[in-house]
Amino acid sequence: MPTMTFKATTRKLPTGLAVEGEARGFKVIMDEPPKLGGSDTGMTPVELMLVALGGCQVIVASAFASAQGVDLQDIWVELEGDLDPMGFTQGAPGVRMGFQEIRLTLHMKSDSPPEKLEALAEFIASRCPVEDNLVNHTRIVAQPIVIEPATPEPTVAESV
Amino acid sequence: MPTMTFKATTRKLPTGLAVEGEARGFKVIMDEPPKLGGSDTGMTPVELMLVALGGCQVIVASAFASAQGVDLQDIWVELEGDLDPMGFTQGAPGVRMGFQEIRLTLHMKSDSPPEKLEALAEFIASRCPVEDNLVNHTRIVAQPIVIEPATPEPTVAESV
Repeated sequence: MPTMTFKATTRKLPTGLAVEGEARGFKVIMDEPPKLGGSDTGMTPVELMLVALGGCQVIVASAFASAQGVDLQDIWVELEGDLDPMGFTQGAPGVRMGFQEIRLTLHMKSDSPPEKLEALAEFIASRCPVEDNLVNHTRIVAQPIVIEPATPEPTVAESV
Repeated sequence: MPTMTFKATTRKLPTGLAVEGEARGFKVIMDEPPKLGGSDTGMTPVELMLVALGGCQVIVASAFASAQGVDLQDIWVELEGDLDPMGFTQGAPGVRMGFQEIRLTLHMKSDSPPEKLEALAEFIASRCPVEDNLVNHTRIVAQPIVIEPATPEPTVAESV
């Protein structure tokens, strides 16, 4: 299977801080809670990042449990991340912008032996693409910005 | 403003590889396309990670454009990431699991001078929490797994 290129677009919505994200026709709204200046119409991007991490872990588990010798009846993941908003809101020195730490708890419903489940959890962590991109450096290449023509101010014909 | 803890949960759905993610009542479905073993009912987690990154950039832009002296009429972001599926599907040696590179293009609709828009783009990159977590190491702490009671096999009373 050759290297795959995944694509997505995010676009500001007309009001407030809300944003629509889209990939292959699937859509999701992001926003901020009122105390961070938003209208609370969707998850924040950092919550969505936690969801992407937890979703990735569940998919790796579902895809590989049998091959790892585990009878996995169900799995869910609780995630939490600590973020000091003085970073991204104020640019406070010495404060990182993103999560300082992400904690992750796997819940597995199974009657396979605990040591098999522990081994599956380690396998998941080692194979999860989103975990790799968070734990290890990911290169982000900013392309030249594209300046789109601004909408002209409406002419005030009445003022003549 | 004190440090904030953001939380999310992801849970396997009954069929295939589909997963439901949830944070503060907001929900999103993740899945995989058929060629990766899924039923294609939602974005993949890696697409959702791109969306989280792009959403974060748009929100930082919307929140700070005025303070940065830019009249920003609209903004959208195109993102793409290259991933070699031999990593997470096969554990191929020397292949990383996640994106090898993420490319990001900001489209800005504005009549502010180009140099102001370039400066805003640099500001966005420097203040975006999701970009920080991807570009720089993020500590993920796996808590002890929670083994949930398995559902007993149905008893076959008829077999007596």
